[in-house]
Amino acid sequence: MSKEKVMIFDTTLRDGEQAAGSRLGAREKLEIARQLARLKVDIIEAGFPASSPEDFEAVRLISEQLDGPIICGLTRARAEDIEVCIRALAKAKRCRIHTGIGVSDIHIEGKFADDKYGRTMAEKKANIIKMAVNAVRQAAEFTKDVEFYAEDSGRAGREYLYEILDAVIDAGATVVNIPDTTGYAIPQQWGELIRDIRANVPNIAKATISVHCHDDLGLAVANSLAGVKNGARQVEGTINGIGERAGNAAIEEVVMAILTRRDFFDEVETGINTREFYRTSRMVADMLGMPVPANKAIVGHNAFAHSSGIHVDGFLKKRETYEIMRPETIGLAESRVVLTARTGRHGLVHRLEEMGYTLSKDEIEKAYERFLAIADRKKEVFDEDLAAIISDEIHLIEQTYELQYLHVACGTGTLPTASVKIKTGDETRQAAACGDGPVDAAYEAIRDATGQSPKLENYTIRALTGGKEALGEATVKIRDDSRSYVGRGISTDIIEASAKAYVDAINRMVAMQGKGKAVEDRNSNI
Amino acid sequence: MSKEKVMIFDTTLRDGEQAAGSRLGAREKLEIARQLARLKVDIIEAGFPASSPEDFEAVRLISEQLDGPIICGLTRARAEDIEVCIRALAKAKRCRIHTGIGVSDIHIEGKFADDKYGRTMAEKKANIIKMAVNAVRQAAEFTKDVEFYAEDSGRAGREYLYEILDAVIDAGATVVNIPDTTGYAIPQQWGELIRDIRANVPNIAKATISVHCHDDLGLAVANSLAGVKNGARQVEGTINGIGERAGNAAIEEVVMAILTRRDFFDEVETGINTREFYRTSRMVADMLGMPVPANKAIVGHNAFAHSSGIHVDGFLKKRETYEIMRPETIGLAESRVVLTARTGRHGLVHRLEEMGYTLSKDEIEKAYERFLAIADRKKEVFDEDLAAIISDEIHLIEQTYELQYLHVACGTGTLPTASVKIKTGDETRQAAACGDGPVDAAYEAIRDATGQSPKLENYTIRALTGGKEALGEATVKIRDDSRSYVGRGISTDIIEASAKAYVDAINRMVAMQGKGKAVEDRNSNI
Repeated sequence: MSKEKVMIFDTTLRDGEQAAGSRLGAREKLEIARQLARLKVDIIEAGFPASSPEDFEAVRLISEQLDGPIICGLTRARAEDIEVCIRALAKAKRCRIHTGIGVSDIHIEGKFADDKYGRTMAEKKANIIKMAVNAVRQAAEFTKDVEFYAEDSGRAGREYLYEILDAVIDAGATVVNIPDTTGYAIPQQWGELIRDIRANVPNIAKATISVHCHDDLGLAVANSLAGVKNGARQVEGTINGIGERAGNAAIEEVVMAILTRRDFFDEVETGINTREFYRTSRMVADMLGMPVPANKAIVGHNAFAHSSGIHVDGFLKKRETYEIMRPETIGLAESRVVLTARTGRHGLVHRLEEMGYTLSKDEIEKAYERFLAIADRKKEVFDEDLAAIISDEIHLIEQTYELQYLHVACGTGTLPTASVKIKTGDETRQAAACGDGPVDAAYEAIRDATGQSPKLENYTIRALTGGKEALGEATVKIRDDSRSYVGRGISTDIIEASAKAYVDAINRMVAMQGKGKAVEDRNSNI
Repeated sequence: MSKEKVMIFDTTLRDGEQAAGSRLGAREKLEIARQLARLKVDIIEAGFPASSPEDFEAVRLISEQLDGPIICGLTRARAEDIEVCIRALAKAKRCRIHTGIGVSDIHIEGKFADDKYGRTMAEKKANIIKMAVNAVRQAAEFTKDVEFYAEDSGRAGREYLYEILDAVIDAGATVVNIPDTTGYAIPQQWGELIRDIRANVPNIAKATISVHCHDDLGLAVANSLAGVKNGARQVEGTINGIGERAGNAAIEEVVMAILTRRDFFDEVETGINTREFYRTSRMVADMLGMPVPANKAIVGHNAFAHSSGIHVDGFLKKRETYEIMRPETIGLAESRVVLTARTGRHGLVHRLEEMGYTLSKDEIEKAYERFLAIADRKKEVFDEDLAAIISDEIHLIEQTYELQYLHVACGTGTLPTASVKIKTGDETRQAAACGDGPVDAAYEAIRDATGQSPKLENYTIRALTGGKEALGEATVKIRDDSRSYVGRGISTDIIEASAKAYVDAINRMVAMQGKGKAVEDRNSNI
């Protein structure tokens, strides 16, 4: 029997990134998009171009640079959104516009309360179909590949849902996306909904049914799979299951379930290169600063670990006793490559390519410099160190302030004290301060030297590599009157990493101030 | 219609703890057990008494101290395991013995390969039924409440599974546990398995069917719910979904799905007090040092956060647009209590009780001392700070080495340098060292002063409370020839926290050496 393909629609860069707190730049999004292309996802939703200039630029850059997957941009069912999206996608080899509108009574009442959308519910509903059809027609003039999302389908009235789907398919939609926007569905019911849509929408054979599930009740993956079993041929999700609230369906779980349980999902297959899962997961976690929990299915640190006695015993006697998947299938290498100060530029580039990073010549030079500096201080440089370097180097913003010097003294019975020198323009300013701890002291000194005093919202530090010669990554979140900024810093010295992160966050804040576009302008629909 | 009760069986202290890397002491397990009692779980699996003296002590202490839930101990189908378990449970008001054996061909071949279990598969299978029946009979002499687990039921031959279940129910098992040991099941199939067991095991009406699902394909919660829909009346799981490999079904997700979707699960209800979910989740995360990921369903930091523009817009217009559950239902308070140096002993105890901690008089005194020391350095003391203090105070081990003094200097162009004074017995030793960073320098100095040089396996640090006056918690994992030891340290100074954690880990190592019981002896069956 020849199998039907389930398309994998990745929205890590749109639904995933918007929830992370830490925003990615266009260059970083491009790097993740390249890795997603190696993973062979079918569609990459690169952003929501009308939501911000940064999102526009990310979609534009990815469209221009990337071969392989279809590049998709999100829009509301509004002419101006679609116009902006078309401009962002202009250079893509293959592109898709993803537009749509809310279809449940609760959404219509909540979001289209204004009389201008109609005074009665019936009027509002008729109007919404018109808006949907117009949006799809407008998009279809630019590309033959148009996806329509029926927001909050899970709570929508069935007859109205069938009607609007029929109308948008007539208008040119080639994919209809059924999102469980609030994560309310139960697999059995969700499967029935997809089956009913197939049975009741007259022209459904002309379109692909897509499922987009959220994890509020812990059922996103199960609902997506129930959709596939009942005829959905596209699944939307994110790497590591990140996303709004409790997140989206984790692509690695959906794909590995279809593969591992091919006896059950015998009619379908995906085109995913599962061996890229591990490195994709790591790249997304590193770039967004959202570590993967140890017990995350498929890609968590413990997912293939067999810690307990009887398990280990059984595992060694017969591997299949406790293992339903092989770690190699997701690209989890058993041996790790170790680089040292003697590794040349060529060896570094080779390893970076193996990790999924593609750098320009300039970027390679900078990365190599950083690599040597770290290799001088550490015997071995690990993949995590490299990821941190790369993330630092391609996360470029203007350096208004540069940390030139830092000295810290602390300990039992010592008042934690820090002194800093900060370069800004041609000027170098110095300051000293005390604090609750060495980090607090350093931050006070930096505030003094820069004259900036944002509110500190959050501070975390984690060791990127285990063992004695750990590299620490600090992440700080600061806030001015309008929005939050996240800064990161990396060093073998965790105090230095913390100070760098703070200066980085301040530089981001200063760079953004005056641009005026607040983060609250970014929108998600589904 | 009167609803049937689904019993909630919590195995956080057994299946959850064994995977965490960081072992809990009996006193800590008791504190979590008390919180689980407030959550009103029906059964607490407190440990596997035969696996180690620590596990025995935990089950014994919880049996002696706790009112409310049934206290359960795990055993293999071996007479000696059951004897030890009976001794551990002796003082429980209500107790259960949980015994069982592998029933799938793959498990039988892998774990009972020896000819002593029978030369043919048929002989082995007959023998396994005998072992199972004998174990259940032995347990039933001590308590009327006996649960039997049929390990790897999901991959077992159906007829054999029915046969062994019928035999153990005849022998006195009142609960039969159907575990998806390897996390291989798909909800639809898992539901059918439970339905088939009900239809094909002649005496099944005499026992409760329990489901115990693992999350290897991301389906643990969905499988548990499919079990309930098809007649299972007990669900086994853990808080935060921690557990072996990808973890167990998350109790908070299972219970909130049954509650939120009571229209679908209309025949059943649980007895859980959902308002205790948030604090239970926090306590388990804090005690095991396993932070809850931001996008974890129900209890994650973002689970009730509405970050994106359209979502926020819709949310404000009409709350139900994007919210299917209310944060109050899980006990997420909108306002936080803040304690300061002016808070008295009484206020502290009151807040600790609100957080779920019950301390002895001595422990309160120690906690109050620590609280004042921190309140002196910080303007506000948060719940996280308190959790850290408590965890430190009740995690007692002998202090062979005590860190009396620490001084560290580091920064740009400074060779990171640390000096320490360590007290051991009547002697005080001092040492100084340089390192890659301040933590590395401090560790080298501690190694020098203690004369201990374990291998450092892992080092992490996290800020427990956001904002300027953060309290840092460092966790280190060290290793001697036979096993790993985890140490923790807390301070507003992250370097001091790191040094304390290292000394704590060394103290644990020294305390354990000579006791001889290796961690590999701890076992899990399902």
